[in-house]
Amino acid sequence: MKYSYVSHLYCPKCSSIYDTKAQHQLCTCGSPLLVDYALEGLGKVLSPEQLKHRKADLWRYHELLPVEDENNVVSLGEGMTSLVPLYRLGRDMAVDHLYMKDEGLVPTGTFKARGAAVGVSKAKELGVEELAMPTNGNAGAAWALYAAKAGMKSTIVMPEDAPEITRNEVAISGAELYLVNGLISDAGKIVGRAVKEYGLYDASTLKEPYRIEGKKTMGLEIAEQLHFKMPDVILYPTGGGVGLIGIHKALKELKALGWVEGDLPRLVAVQATGCAPIVRAWEEGKRESEFWNDSETKAFGINVPKALGDFLVLDALYETNGCAVAVDDEVMLKEQERLARLEGSFVCPEGAAAFAAARRLKKTEWIKEGETVVVLNTGAGIKYPDTVDMQPERLEKEEAIDK
Amino acid sequence: MKYSYVSHLYCPKCSSIYDTKAQHQLCTCGSPLLVDYALEGLGKVLSPEQLKHRKADLWRYHELLPVEDENNVVSLGEGMTSLVPLYRLGRDMAVDHLYMKDEGLVPTGTFKARGAAVGVSKAKELGVEELAMPTNGNAGAAWALYAAKAGMKSTIVMPEDAPEITRNEVAISGAELYLVNGLISDAGKIVGRAVKEYGLYDASTLKEPYRIEGKKTMGLEIAEQLHFKMPDVILYPTGGGVGLIGIHKALKELKALGWVEGDLPRLVAVQATGCAPIVRAWEEGKRESEFWNDSETKAFGINVPKALGDFLVLDALYETNGCAVAVDDEVMLKEQERLARLEGSFVCPEGAAAFAAARRLKKTEWIKEGETVVVLNTGAGIKYPDTVDMQPERLEKEEAIDK
Repeated sequence: MKYSYVSHLYCPKCSSIYDTKAQHQLCTCGSPLLVDYALEGLGKVLSPEQLKHRKADLWRYHELLPVEDENNVVSLGEGMTSLVPLYRLGRDMAVDHLYMKDEGLVPTGTFKARGAAVGVSKAKELGVEELAMPTNGNAGAAWALYAAKAGMKSTIVMPEDAPEITRNEVAISGAELYLVNGLISDAGKIVGRAVKEYGLYDASTLKEPYRIEGKKTMGLEIAEQLHFKMPDVILYPTGGGVGLIGIHKALKELKALGWVEGDLPRLVAVQATGCAPIVRAWEEGKRESEFWNDSETKAFGINVPKALGDFLVLDALYETNGCAVAVDDEVMLKEQERLARLEGSFVCPEGAAAFAAARRLKKTEWIKEGETVVVLNTGAGIKYPDTVDMQPERLEKEEAIDK
Repeated sequence: MKYSYVSHLYCPKCSSIYDTKAQHQLCTCGSPLLVDYALEGLGKVLSPEQLKHRKADLWRYHELLPVEDENNVVSLGEGMTSLVPLYRLGRDMAVDHLYMKDEGLVPTGTFKARGAAVGVSKAKELGVEELAMPTNGNAGAAWALYAAKAGMKSTIVMPEDAPEITRNEVAISGAELYLVNGLISDAGKIVGRAVKEYGLYDASTLKEPYRIEGKKTMGLEIAEQLHFKMPDVILYPTGGGVGLIGIHKALKELKALGWVEGDLPRLVAVQATGCAPIVRAWEEGKRESEFWNDSETKAFGINVPKALGDFLVLDALYETNGCAVAVDDEVMLKEQERLARLEGSFVCPEGAAAFAAARRLKKTEWIKEGETVVVLNTGAGIKYPDTVDMQPERLEKEEAIDK
């Protein structure tokens, strides 16, 4: 039996076809490329039952991933993160069946590890020796570390004010790290020039087709963890949107395999009010977003003024009768604290935004009684130490606690 | 079938027996108490084969854990962390079969979550409403967050210079947090007084008997992940030593069950040269350690001048023909970098110390050719951002990368 059932790449805009044996970046029409699989063949030889005996990482779905030779897999044990039932927070927001998919529990502490694991593995298979990418921090950290494990060089460019922790992760990996006095868009331009001049593999969001396949595994895992009964709603903090596109793709593939039935879950893209291009486009019923000027939010990971894959995110929302919601930073941080106090989980602000959105959607009855709701926490709160503001009491050695 | 096969508590020093239905702290003789199980009964009804179908978290071993009613389990999805083969680093240090058990992949980012999950769950079962503990950071963070999930109050006292990230974790959990102008020993005295005055449950290291049971699951998982064939050597960064005591206890229990055969792995306690009381005691063939004055190391988690369970750690080393090794901070940080560059893993300095120790023990041929070696990385490097020192290049927006 084949390790991967990958068949080809296709363009969701102009329908061009590419093979998966050579390095490809964007389609000649400028659109990101997507990966397709021989699902019919696979449906005949693999059943959900067989998955049960496999290792608890994302490579358990290797037939649905693009790496063809298992020897090219570069893994740090990523995936199969916990789907934690949240009874107390669920009661607090009157959502009957509330779950958190906790993406803090992967190497590098954010969901970016999934895209990096699959993206770097496939790059290795394609003979890539050096990659480059701009980043707001977490993606660059993940790609630099996985590239190091693969013995691949990497060049990472990030804004000077990106979180210091991610800067340290990149530096210790041995990557070439550059800090730019500007935004991620400026970093992107610098990377673009370097890619041209030095013939590097461009690992920018959606400029290579395989990162999304790694993100897709979040959707596969949610389905498997719910015993292949789909939830009613999935909420996702949306910057570049690759996670949401990936989850949508995963569920459609599972449906094509016949492993899940019925309507797809309603997908919800959650953004910050300070940077909500997808929300605005969705409210106006548009198929693409417009650049969001002077964007600002404490949720660094969703500060993306214009995503290359915006049309794929919007498609996913329209196709599933989903919606898009913007959340204030203040409301987001309040929800982050509530989650820690009620559920003992210190989530990242992006994840907290998605929980705040769930609360609001239940209040407006968009989420209905009895529904099963899955919220993605895209990273560990410990990567964002500055979101907590507190004044603990100070004691001298001989002092006593006075309750 | 019973959820837990716990039978009683016993004192490893004076052999007193206690039940597990009431709250107990230390033995009346001053020693920590250990938990015993009805292993004979269990061996008849449970086989390793049955474990395979269970969820990938530490509760898969519930028969060997002290919580008797499943409803008392307080879980954030901790455990069953990856056992990652390290081919490149293994070649680099000439260790033939080198594995990392990566404890960065749990809630709160360190192995302390295991002890907190089981400790808090059992405390809940015993009706505890409020606990207190001194901490150097990570343990307090884990216990405060798990206590919050259990709806339990907690009082946490830590040195003023404990890592800020852990302080934020405690604060956001809603715990009562106090910073002391002193060391963890000073924090311990303050907690001791508060425990007496307010009747709190003392969750200090080894002062309640159940934390060790959570740590034990590292040993159970290593065995299961190696298909119940024991490794030759296990290296553990040792501060309080609860992890090492727990792993030793786990392997003895598996042997009693008949699930593993042959000699136990040689256990190695790794410390920093700036705080090496166990190493000194082992070198002198003693059964207890002496207080280490003016201790100092960048590996905050193993800065423990005198561990309450030192005699249990030393017993484990003697019983398994293991040893104790001290590593310089400089060597430790060098190994941390090597691990990131060769294996893409950003480990904590404590974990790096254990890898450095493996390298040295191979050089001196204490580790032999063909042996299987498991190193515990006790936490994620992202919790220690200050260990990375780097000077990345800075670019203006219009500048180009010059390779």
